[in-house]
Amino acid sequence: MLRTHTCGELRLEDVGKEVTLSGWVQRVRNKGGLVWVDLRDRYGVTQLIFEEGSSDKDLLEKAAHLGREFVIQAKGEVIERTSKNNKIPTGDVEVKTTGLEILNAAKVPPFVIEDETDGGEDLRMKYRYLDLRRRVVREKLQLRHHMMQETRKFMDAEDFMEVETPVLIKSTPEGARDFLVPSRVNKGEFYALPQSPQTFKQLLMVSGFDRYFQIVKCFRDEDLRADRQPEFTQIDCEMSFVEQEDVLQTFERLTKHLFSKVKKVELGEVERMSFTDAMKYYGNDKPDLRFDMKFVELNDLAQNKGFNVFDNAELVVGICAQGAAEYTRKQLDALTNWVKRPQIGAMGLVYVKCNEDGSFKSSVDKFYSQEDLAAWAERMGAHPGDLLLILSGDANTTRKQLSELRLKMGSDLGLRDKNVFKPLWVLDFPLLEWDEDTERYHAMHHPFTSPKKEDIPLLESDPGAVRANAYDLVINGVEIGGGSIRIHDKNTQKMMFKHLGFTDEEAQEQFGFLMEAFEYGAPPHGGIAFGFDRLCAIFGGSDSIRDYIAFPKNNSGRDVMIDSPSHISEDQLEELSIRLAMKKEV
Amino acid sequence: MLRTHTCGELRLEDVGKEVTLSGWVQRVRNKGGLVWVDLRDRYGVTQLIFEEGSSDKDLLEKAAHLGREFVIQAKGEVIERTSKNNKIPTGDVEVKTTGLEILNAAKVPPFVIEDETDGGEDLRMKYRYLDLRRRVVREKLQLRHHMMQETRKFMDAEDFMEVETPVLIKSTPEGARDFLVPSRVNKGEFYALPQSPQTFKQLLMVSGFDRYFQIVKCFRDEDLRADRQPEFTQIDCEMSFVEQEDVLQTFERLTKHLFSKVKKVELGEVERMSFTDAMKYYGNDKPDLRFDMKFVELNDLAQNKGFNVFDNAELVVGICAQGAAEYTRKQLDALTNWVKRPQIGAMGLVYVKCNEDGSFKSSVDKFYSQEDLAAWAERMGAHPGDLLLILSGDANTTRKQLSELRLKMGSDLGLRDKNVFKPLWVLDFPLLEWDEDTERYHAMHHPFTSPKKEDIPLLESDPGAVRANAYDLVINGVEIGGGSIRIHDKNTQKMMFKHLGFTDEEAQEQFGFLMEAFEYGAPPHGGIAFGFDRLCAIFGGSDSIRDYIAFPKNNSGRDVMIDSPSHISEDQLEELSIRLAMKKEV
Repeated sequence: MLRTHTCGELRLEDVGKEVTLSGWVQRVRNKGGLVWVDLRDRYGVTQLIFEEGSSDKDLLEKAAHLGREFVIQAKGEVIERTSKNNKIPTGDVEVKTTGLEILNAAKVPPFVIEDETDGGEDLRMKYRYLDLRRRVVREKLQLRHHMMQETRKFMDAEDFMEVETPVLIKSTPEGARDFLVPSRVNKGEFYALPQSPQTFKQLLMVSGFDRYFQIVKCFRDEDLRADRQPEFTQIDCEMSFVEQEDVLQTFERLTKHLFSKVKKVELGEVERMSFTDAMKYYGNDKPDLRFDMKFVELNDLAQNKGFNVFDNAELVVGICAQGAAEYTRKQLDALTNWVKRPQIGAMGLVYVKCNEDGSFKSSVDKFYSQEDLAAWAERMGAHPGDLLLILSGDANTTRKQLSELRLKMGSDLGLRDKNVFKPLWVLDFPLLEWDEDTERYHAMHHPFTSPKKEDIPLLESDPGAVRANAYDLVINGVEIGGGSIRIHDKNTQKMMFKHLGFTDEEAQEQFGFLMEAFEYGAPPHGGIAFGFDRLCAIFGGSDSIRDYIAFPKNNSGRDVMIDSPSHISEDQLEELSIRLAMKKEV
Repeated sequence: MLRTHTCGELRLEDVGKEVTLSGWVQRVRNKGGLVWVDLRDRYGVTQLIFEEGSSDKDLLEKAAHLGREFVIQAKGEVIERTSKNNKIPTGDVEVKTTGLEILNAAKVPPFVIEDETDGGEDLRMKYRYLDLRRRVVREKLQLRHHMMQETRKFMDAEDFMEVETPVLIKSTPEGARDFLVPSRVNKGEFYALPQSPQTFKQLLMVSGFDRYFQIVKCFRDEDLRADRQPEFTQIDCEMSFVEQEDVLQTFERLTKHLFSKVKKVELGEVERMSFTDAMKYYGNDKPDLRFDMKFVELNDLAQNKGFNVFDNAELVVGICAQGAAEYTRKQLDALTNWVKRPQIGAMGLVYVKCNEDGSFKSSVDKFYSQEDLAAWAERMGAHPGDLLLILSGDANTTRKQLSELRLKMGSDLGLRDKNVFKPLWVLDFPLLEWDEDTERYHAMHHPFTSPKKEDIPLLESDPGAVRANAYDLVINGVEIGGGSIRIHDKNTQKMMFKHLGFTDEEAQEQFGFLMEAFEYGAPPHGGIAFGFDRLCAIFGGSDSIRDYIAFPKNNSGRDVMIDSPSHISEDQLEELSIRLAMKKEV
């Protein structure tokens, strides 16, 4: 080793030891006959001191001319510092340096390698290897490492077997777009990269593996949004001979284990809510429960009082923002403009201030008496000092709009503390959802999800009303993962494909192997997958999963550091028996 | 849960308990009023008993008609067996069954689900999910699981950070062929799947991550051989501020840890050998050290005695097979034919039997006296009863041929015990090797491997003589992994690319990001990668890595179970802006 100790290791009890340290120059302070160098590595920072007299002249000169981010090796004796630094664990000591070797010089970095940097997003992505050198960024990846190890410890202890499923699989047009890989050996044919190991984990259950898990890369060729990546990581699991309750309890234990081990947070009971209630009370299938502000429906109280907007609405629904009655006219106008932005799309916003004196002031005083407004306030559980915010219109649309407003109010009122964690199981999802574009039903979860037994008769009469044995884990308004109890017999699976608009031939070509497997003794089984990048982001208190990925891609799916994707040679194309359907250079 | 216990759990102390078991029907024995069913799951086998009288008539009937591999749920009381089975841990008890539910029927499997099966390779691959149901196959995957968990425990404890590197990267024509992924968003451009995370792990060292590891899928589009797969798994590692000795010691510790934890085998010191010695004494850079049979050169003793074959040979070299003097004429002819097969390609084989009476009998008695042969025997350390086998010809070719013969003799004489493990570090590999096809030097390890400092001057004068800071771990003649101390400065890396025949432009286009990174303070670093599939196979005592992969591909790179690769739709091609350069159906 080019060191005897790391830069985070030396303490008072090491005083007197001859040590060798290696690392990066964080800072150089030159006071004439005295030079201090802060030497940094992954483990910490140790101060080196170069003194005139005790070190030879050349050494002092060499130290004084070290640049930021130079990689050096320093030898010397650990001494006690005269002025200690209690902000760092090594702050009691310094190394009186007698030997200095420059292992590698460094150009001036394109941005400052400190917790606070002057580098913009683009620059930091191009030089991601320098961005990762910043403590705050490295710690995010260390958190991720910790999460991975603790996940595996838990799963292993619960008898889950880690099995690697293939990356080169088969394209199935259902769902999102696949990334495809032309086969050179099987000309004209393609592999696909997995969107999830779904069918393989189900086959492992048919194999009697009983409990499977994997922390696995998955791939989706989607148009990217801020928090999507073309490749992402899942904690993927499957269990045999289970019912929904068993899966919920197992992964509630995993979640609590991770919070306890990684965040030192003891989670309470995980709440549960039906999809229907989540939509009714939060307008959203992933409600943020760090704050209440439940939806309250006001149709019966607010309609038929002469206010056309409400009278013509399918739904009049509001939330109560506690303590917000002192919002100024300007703030209320801003809120109104906010809900009217095209991203939200509301026609307007009705407010009612519950004044401290028991009176009400609303934007619809023309139409409603103080008694009317008192009745609204009572139903909404409002107290003097609260602010009621009410939207109206088509039910589904209005709920979505109010959901956005609720989240904004939660943020504005400081009710969404990144250090508070409110996990929630959302249950009883619909099995199918109607797709306007293709004019057919799609599987809300995926085509392998089982319908609730008692709802199966509805499949023919009212497919949209059939509930699935499906569940999502939501934390702080973010969907962490979802799963379901699967179909495990061929006939139900065939029926499901039929309802999803597959012909028998299509079902057979794409999933014939799975339906055949179901005929050879498939056990009842179910599972779940957690979005690992997102779970890490939640643990780290960040909105962006990109921070928790070592080498993320940008919104165009590019890795700007290595400049990928890139053009390939004609020889490569020819070997793969493909041609570009456009000119290489436009 | 659809069970209270697994099928491997019940013991004498559970007698009297009411239990519910779920699993697969392994066997049904029907003795009229008495039916036994062996119920199997991943954890074991438990005997169910159905008795006339104590169970109702229907139940007995139902049990008698259960088919192999039916999935059932059985309820009943644990009772002590009258005739115990001490071959299985549950053999003291059985379950007196009072309730039976068929969870899923099963067709007769296409092959027998037992340790010994009648299914051929092709059939078992098509129904891999049934093959995996066999205990002997499942245990191989359980071994793999165990190896993964222990690897991670060790690496975590030694401060290695697990970092996931990207799967969608950039094509680099150096090395084996890349699998390519057309980009839909960046039309005409392609991602490549990584052959290894080499450049990313080096960048992580530039980032100061200090110690990185990953158990990671890698991809090579090669023409497949029996023990190659297009996707395979590596234990991939990198360390900063290390010298070769540090890497060797760290991964020697990992190897010992795995043997100790997984195999309960305590490995001794790992031997070390230079590449030059491995070639000289074993004709092979991955010698199997479970047996000795070192090469002995005989030129000075065997030439100029009138035997033209030896006289004209660059090298005369032999091995001593202990105790094989009683090989019959027929056996010796068979050996001669074996080395003359085109796969080996020797012109002939010379043997010398060292008789028990001290005399010698050879195939070249015409040319050599008893004293001549005695001198050979002495040099080769032979004793009465041993057999000398000698080949001659061009030095490199002859060493390769003798290496094959040595391994065959080791196998024939029972010297290659699967339960004996002989690890070896092979060191001091050449940096470059001459490629006859392209008429230029290739990197023997890869272009990022550093030359030994003292050999750098040779780069201009005698490139083939330059040794690398590279090392391979070999166990029982199988290359488990290899690594090197890397180049960490731009100038050396540029020089290396030049010697490999890259123009400056090519080097810049493909690896510019890495060379630029080296300018911002790259620490000295090195690492290693172990072939994880192969390591598992060695631990399991198998020659085939395929057994240790849950869903392997066949020799044409096909997954015959899911039938992949496969044709894709015209829409998919169009979205990716590519066309097939051949007709879809030929």
